[in-house]
Amino acid sequence: MVEMDVVVVGAGLAGLSAARKLVAAGKSVRVLEARDRVAGRNLGGFLSNGVPVERGGQWIGPTQTTVLELVAELGLETFASYESGDSLTILDGERIRYSDEYFGIPAEHLLEVGRLWARVEELAATVPPEAPWQAPDAHNLDRQTFDSWLTENTTDTVALRFFRFVVPAVFSAESSEMSLLHFLTYLKSSGNSLQTLLSLGGGAQERRVVGGTHQISERLASELGDSVQLGAVVRTISQNNEGVAVSYEDADASSIGVVTARQVIVAIPPTLAGRIRYLPALPASRDGLTQQIPAGAVIKFQVGYPTPFWREDGLSGFVASLDDAFNPVMDNSPPDASCGVLVGFLEGAHARTAAELSVTERRQIIVDTLVKYFGPQAAEPFDVVEQDWTAEEFTRGCYGGRLGAGVWTQYGKALAAPVGRIHWAGAEVAHVWNGYMEGAILSGRQAADEVLAAL
Amino acid sequence: MVEMDVVVVGAGLAGLSAARKLVAAGKSVRVLEARDRVAGRNLGGFLSNGVPVERGGQWIGPTQTTVLELVAELGLETFASYESGDSLTILDGERIRYSDEYFGIPAEHLLEVGRLWARVEELAATVPPEAPWQAPDAHNLDRQTFDSWLTENTTDTVALRFFRFVVPAVFSAESSEMSLLHFLTYLKSSGNSLQTLLSLGGGAQERRVVGGTHQISERLASELGDSVQLGAVVRTISQNNEGVAVSYEDADASSIGVVTARQVIVAIPPTLAGRIRYLPALPASRDGLTQQIPAGAVIKFQVGYPTPFWREDGLSGFVASLDDAFNPVMDNSPPDASCGVLVGFLEGAHARTAAELSVTERRQIIVDTLVKYFGPQAAEPFDVVEQDWTAEEFTRGCYGGRLGAGVWTQYGKALAAPVGRIHWAGAEVAHVWNGYMEGAILSGRQAADEVLAAL
Repeated sequence: MVEMDVVVVGAGLAGLSAARKLVAAGKSVRVLEARDRVAGRNLGGFLSNGVPVERGGQWIGPTQTTVLELVAELGLETFASYESGDSLTILDGERIRYSDEYFGIPAEHLLEVGRLWARVEELAATVPPEAPWQAPDAHNLDRQTFDSWLTENTTDTVALRFFRFVVPAVFSAESSEMSLLHFLTYLKSSGNSLQTLLSLGGGAQERRVVGGTHQISERLASELGDSVQLGAVVRTISQNNEGVAVSYEDADASSIGVVTARQVIVAIPPTLAGRIRYLPALPASRDGLTQQIPAGAVIKFQVGYPTPFWREDGLSGFVASLDDAFNPVMDNSPPDASCGVLVGFLEGAHARTAAELSVTERRQIIVDTLVKYFGPQAAEPFDVVEQDWTAEEFTRGCYGGRLGAGVWTQYGKALAAPVGRIHWAGAEVAHVWNGYMEGAILSGRQAADEVLAAL
Repeated sequence: MVEMDVVVVGAGLAGLSAARKLVAAGKSVRVLEARDRVAGRNLGGFLSNGVPVERGGQWIGPTQTTVLELVAELGLETFASYESGDSLTILDGERIRYSDEYFGIPAEHLLEVGRLWARVEELAATVPPEAPWQAPDAHNLDRQTFDSWLTENTTDTVALRFFRFVVPAVFSAESSEMSLLHFLTYLKSSGNSLQTLLSLGGGAQERRVVGGTHQISERLASELGDSVQLGAVVRTISQNNEGVAVSYEDADASSIGVVTARQVIVAIPPTLAGRIRYLPALPASRDGLTQQIPAGAVIKFQVGYPTPFWREDGLSGFVASLDDAFNPVMDNSPPDASCGVLVGFLEGAHARTAAELSVTERRQIIVDTLVKYFGPQAAEPFDVVEQDWTAEEFTRGCYGGRLGAGVWTQYGKALAAPVGRIHWAGAEVAHVWNGYMEGAILSGRQAADEVLAAL
């Protein structure tokens, strides 16, 4: 009576990685994807001149070995993010140019930033990212927001502003919107180095994929062929002693279908996983968890210029502003530099405020800010491509879900724990490079292993 | 083509109050209720001797004039909660007996509790509950959890423990699980008196309804007759220029239906409203809001004894423990005292921990704790009725939804703002007695007014 061995919900990197492993083990798999495309939070796009730009996740770093190997295996190529020249930090109207690893922080504040930086890494070292609730001081780390910790631990307003820049840059959420324990868990899962999280060379933003990261998912899906079903919005998952039934509808809810299987992997962000109806209803611990893993808010912009003119000024294109909404900004030009591209973000509170504006108003803010950073040549981009991830029905925010005060210690166990025949995957479930492509792939493979053991 | 003037989703007090007002104005209304009963977070039950007990919300206070008037209008009667005699506070193993309004707090801590108490009410006075984001210091009040504020503002551990008792008693959530601004908003919405929130006589727990509060909804539903459709789990709400289409299924998802109308009122908790699929998709501001209004966690117990034996010892039955999980406890005997009933709660973190135990294990904790409070006579209840609200698919937690750090200031506007033909009601939407029956009724009537203006 059961059609497939496994249904996978979601054709992002997690779901497709799970499906690939299951198919390789000889299992029959159906991947149900709500959108008319695969790749989830990876999304390709083009500037008006035809140059490809990524509207979603784009960078890969050196310790992200799984995704690097997968990229190579799939015949894709990477290239180094551009980072030659000086970078800029904007502080109280001043444009600080620097070429070292200190983010242009004025000398009189650098010691305090360094002290907090070291303290955060010390604290993160105590957190096991596969079970943050088991950290020795978990309860205390979890009862406060990261922002409360910062304000209790420094009176240096520049240091405070620097960390309030760092957090949205990494999470698309404010330091007040996650527990200290969540920040530490995330940091620890990526190797416990803030420098790694924030850097291009040597860090999480080191390399890019020629043509775009969405091709990873596209090639995985291509291998899977007819196993991947697009336009299938999963609404209900029923399980009993025999198996699971996964019911879906199309994007405009005009047709419905159902697939039965022995096991199911739900590989979508937790806040979306919580909207599926489960029969029987999920345990309170799992439902309580998905009630409180909101996704970050980010609007990503790609701004095209005829040339990467900032390079001529000896600038890398990297800007961190402690004054402005639009940042960080980086050089995102194609590998052949056939045109210049600056990529930048409105993140966290800035994204939420800007979402109330029109596209034209947002574009004006972006261009005006780039003129401030790079001079009058920035005033005339030939194209601006924007992508608001909070408006996407089938993502509802990037970069990922975060856990607020009290959630890791009280609900964290439910993040990865299967419920009967239902298994969970996705970047949020990973305990290595949580929130990144690397983590998504690893979580998908781990869920596949769980399912193989259960089949 | 449109069948009804209005569809109301949810037959709790908010939805039924909205429907009643619309019907009174001559509009055609269909109320769709997921459960096979009305009344939502109000739920009747019985001890094994046939005495009615409330498994959900039960108390009404003197400034809750709307619900008091409605109760009278519907022919129901109220009676005063029992509070004669001394109350108990448990602290470091000591059983402190008191008869004044100071909760048995030892004299050496009372001044500090009073100072914090006054400071909280001072801060709450600055918050407009209909728009907390407009409080003068809103951003600062919202960036921190209430617990962080407490730990920054006192070093008196008993005072801290007292407030860490107060918050779960009011919210079924920990002081670390909401922003300071949320606590203040809630307090202000109920008249800005902690004493009112915590008290029986003169406060929010002053009166009870003979036979149970669920009868309010039952009588409203009875008036509405066939307009109320039970067993209709709403899954999708579509709107266009003509009207709305509300699709539902039955509890086991084996049959489906649809109702069309000109307007719709969604009167279910925000965390459940966010699980409905909306076509077109809701704005990011609304979706972001429902991603982060988790419901509290509470397991409510009614413990029946042959007599209210504690009264003979001169005790009121009220216990606040700064040591134990099971509290507060109150005398919940029927008006004729034909048997003795103690009502008590596992709230917040205590509820989440206890949910992992068996019914038998929980019962043992409850009985052992009552013996500690009231002596050996408490060891032999003739019945224990428990109700875990987090396990209820169509509530998923009580007493209500709360907003964590950053949510009120960034998403609060979306709580009550209609989206096209969709209007929002429920205890969480109220700005007077937010979270209470009073607020639910007021929010339903306000949504009805919005709809009447739009029809």
